[in-house]
Amino acid sequence: MTLPSLRLKKHADRRLKAGHLWLYSNEIDTDATPLKTLEAGQQVVVEAANGKALGVAYVNPHSLICARLLSREPKQGLDRSLLVHRLNQALSLREQLFAKPFYRLVHGEGDLLPGLVIDRFGDVLVVQLNTAGMQAVLEELLDALDKVLSPSVVVLRNDTSGRRQEGLELTVEVVKGELPDQVIIEENGVRFGVPILDGQKTGWFYDHRINRAWLNERVAGKRVLDLFSYVGGWGIQAAASGASEVLCVDSSAAALARVAENATLNGLHEQVAVGEGDALEALAALKADGEQFDVVILDPPAFIKKRKDIPNGERAYGRLNREAMRLLGRDGLLLSASCSMHLAPERLVDVVRGAVRHQDRHGQILFQGHQGPDHPVHPAIPETAYLKALGVRVFRD
Amino acid sequence: MTLPSLRLKKHADRRLKAGHLWLYSNEIDTDATPLKTLEAGQQVVVEAANGKALGVAYVNPHSLICARLLSREPKQGLDRSLLVHRLNQALSLREQLFAKPFYRLVHGEGDLLPGLVIDRFGDVLVVQLNTAGMQAVLEELLDALDKVLSPSVVVLRNDTSGRRQEGLELTVEVVKGELPDQVIIEENGVRFGVPILDGQKTGWFYDHRINRAWLNERVAGKRVLDLFSYVGGWGIQAAASGASEVLCVDSSAAALARVAENATLNGLHEQVAVGEGDALEALAALKADGEQFDVVILDPPAFIKKRKDIPNGERAYGRLNREAMRLLGRDGLLLSASCSMHLAPERLVDVVRGAVRHQDRHGQILFQGHQGPDHPVHPAIPETAYLKALGVRVFRD
Repeated sequence: MTLPSLRLKKHADRRLKAGHLWLYSNEIDTDATPLKTLEAGQQVVVEAANGKALGVAYVNPHSLICARLLSREPKQGLDRSLLVHRLNQALSLREQLFAKPFYRLVHGEGDLLPGLVIDRFGDVLVVQLNTAGMQAVLEELLDALDKVLSPSVVVLRNDTSGRRQEGLELTVEVVKGELPDQVIIEENGVRFGVPILDGQKTGWFYDHRINRAWLNERVAGKRVLDLFSYVGGWGIQAAASGASEVLCVDSSAAALARVAENATLNGLHEQVAVGEGDALEALAALKADGEQFDVVILDPPAFIKKRKDIPNGERAYGRLNREAMRLLGRDGLLLSASCSMHLAPERLVDVVRGAVRHQDRHGQILFQGHQGPDHPVHPAIPETAYLKALGVRVFRD
Repeated sequence: MTLPSLRLKKHADRRLKAGHLWLYSNEIDTDATPLKTLEAGQQVVVEAANGKALGVAYVNPHSLICARLLSREPKQGLDRSLLVHRLNQALSLREQLFAKPFYRLVHGEGDLLPGLVIDRFGDVLVVQLNTAGMQAVLEELLDALDKVLSPSVVVLRNDTSGRRQEGLELTVEVVKGELPDQVIIEENGVRFGVPILDGQKTGWFYDHRINRAWLNERVAGKRVLDLFSYVGGWGIQAAASGASEVLCVDSSAAALARVAENATLNGLHEQVAVGEGDALEALAALKADGEQFDVVILDPPAFIKKRKDIPNGERAYGRLNREAMRLLGRDGLLLSASCSMHLAPERLVDVVRGAVRHQDRHGQILFQGHQGPDHPVHPAIPETAYLKALGVRVFRD
C-alpha cells in the first residue's frame, strides 16, 4: 500500500520536529500536493519542503488542523498493529497507576492517538472518535480493543461538537455487547453509578480524581457546597470523607437524581442534599437566606470554548468566583476549577485574586491541581493540558 | 506613635489595590516624601497621590522593592499584636493541614508577613529575616513566637543572600534555648535528621513534600537515581516506598554523610547507596558504565537567580534533563523539578519536550506539582510561586 504525499511549505516542519503532531492548512504546499484531492480521514506521508519523509498523518481537508501525525516512521500508518501497540502502551501506564479498572484509557494526542478518547468503566469502554481520521479506522480500533482488553461492552459516544467540525455524524451507539442497567465505578474509594448513554461527555469526569483526593483530606466536619455538581463526584466524596453536610446544586434534574442514588449507594443520603437551579441564582438565594459554608466547590463547564470567548469567559469565571466566595465564612476554602483549555493557569489565579480583593478578604493558594495522570499532557502540545483546580484559603484579617 | 508618610505617584497605587504588597522605588513621589530621609526598616503610612492612606508598610530606601505593605489599616503597624495575629493565622492553617509539627510555619508574603520565613522542626524554629523591615521587629517577633508557640529553641539562619542586598549582616545564631545534637523530622512517614546550622537554607526543604508523596507511589520495585540528593529527601523516601535500589548523588560529602545516617535511621541502609560528585559528571560516568534506572529524580538548586540569568539557566536545565533522560530504560519515569521562580512552568515543560525529542523518545507529563500548602501562594504576587515538579513518563515507541 502506497500512501499519497502531503508536502509542507518551507520551514513548516518546525513544529513537527519540535514534537507537535498537528499541521495547519496554511502550512501545506498545496501546489505540490493539493489538499482538496484528499479525502477526510485519509492517511498520507508527510514530507518536508525538501521532500524528506517525516512520518504518516491522517488528513481532513475541511479542518483548520488539516493533518495529525500518527507515526514518525514513513512506512508505519495507523493500522490494527499500531493501534494494538499504542493501546498496550496506554494500558500499561494505567495498570501501573491504578489498582482498579476505572480510568481514561486513551487521552488522544497525549497517548499518541490523535482524536481518540476512551474511558474505561470496568468491562465497559466508552469511545469517542473526534476526527475523520479516527472514524476511518473504527473497525481496526474495535479489533485492537478486543485483542488488548476484550471488553464486554463498547459504546460510541460520538456526540461531541468536535465531530460536527470534522463533518462527521453525531451518534450514540452500543457497538459491542449489552449495556447493563447500572455501571458502577469507584473513585478515591467511593462508588458512583455513571450515566453512560445520556450523561455529560463519556458519562464521568476522571480528570479531577487527584484534585478531589486533595479536597477530600480537607473537609472532615465541614459544611460543603458543590456547585455544578453533576452526578456528585465532588460532593459525595466530600460526604464520604467526613463532611458534616453537603449541598449539591445543578441545573439538571436528571443529574441530581443520580446524586441522590449515588449518595444512597454509599450510605450517605443523610449527609447529602440537592438543589436544582442555575448556579448564580442558587448562590444569590443561599446568600439571601443567610447560609454559610466552610467549603465551596466551583467546577463549572468550560466557559471558554474558543479563543474569541476569552474575555467573556474570564468575566463569567470572575463573577462566579466572587459570588461563590460570599458564601464562605471567616476562614473558608474555595475549590475553583476550570476545564477551559483557553484559560491560562495564571488567569485563573487572577480570577481568584480579583474575587478575594472584591470581597476585601485575603487569599492563600494552597493547591494548584491539574488533570490526573490518566490524562497525560503531551509536552509539545499545550492543547493537551486543559484542567486547572485551585485550592484557596479565603479569610478575613 | 505617628508614622511618617510615603506618598505614591499618580496611578502607582494600582498594584497595591489589586492585592500586591510591594512598592518599587520609581513609584514613590520623592518630592513629597523623599525616600532618603527614611531609615531602612522604618514603618510608614503609604498614601495614594491624592493623599488617601492605603495602609502601613516598612521601607528600605536602598532596595529596588522600597516598601512592603504590612496592613491595609493605616493605624495598624507591624507590632507584637499584629505579629501574634498573623502567626496564629499561619499556625491554624498548618494545624489543619498536618498532624505533626513539621512544616513551614511562615512563608513570607504568602502569609502576609513580607520578608519572614519560619520553618518548624517540632520544638525547634528556624527563622530567616530577609528584609530590614523584619529585622527591625526581631524582638517583637521573638515575643510573639513565645506567646503563640513557646518553642524550646529558636535559630536565626540569617545567612541568605537577600540580606546582603538589604544591607543586613549575615549571621547564624541560636537566640533561644539550646540546639539538640539531633533534630529529627518526619515527612510522608519517613524520618530525617536535619542539619539546622550548616545545611542548605533552613536545613530542610518542606516545599517538595507533596511532590515526593506523588513519586513515592510510583517507585515500588524500581531502581532509582536521585541527583542533587542533599540529605536524601527524595531518595530515602523512595527506598521507604519500596524502591529496590536507590543511588543518591550530591557534590557535598557532608550531605551524603547525612544520607547514610538518614537511611540507617529508617533501616534502609541496604537499599541506599551514595555517590559524591558533580551531577553532569556523575551522569556521564554512569552512562559510560552502562547503568540504567527506572526512575531519575532531578531536583537541582535554582539555576536562575535573576531575570537576566534566564537564557543560561534554561540551557543548564535543558542539558541536565537531556543527560538524565539518557539513563532511563525503555519505559522510565523522570521527576524534573525547578525551584527557580524565574523559570515559568511552561518553560520547564519545554525543557522536558526538548530533552525527549533530542533522545527521539516520547514523553507524557503525568504530574505537574508545585510547592506544598505550607508555602501558600499569594494570588496577587506571582513571585510567591516558585516551585515546579514534573512527573514524566519517557518511553521509546
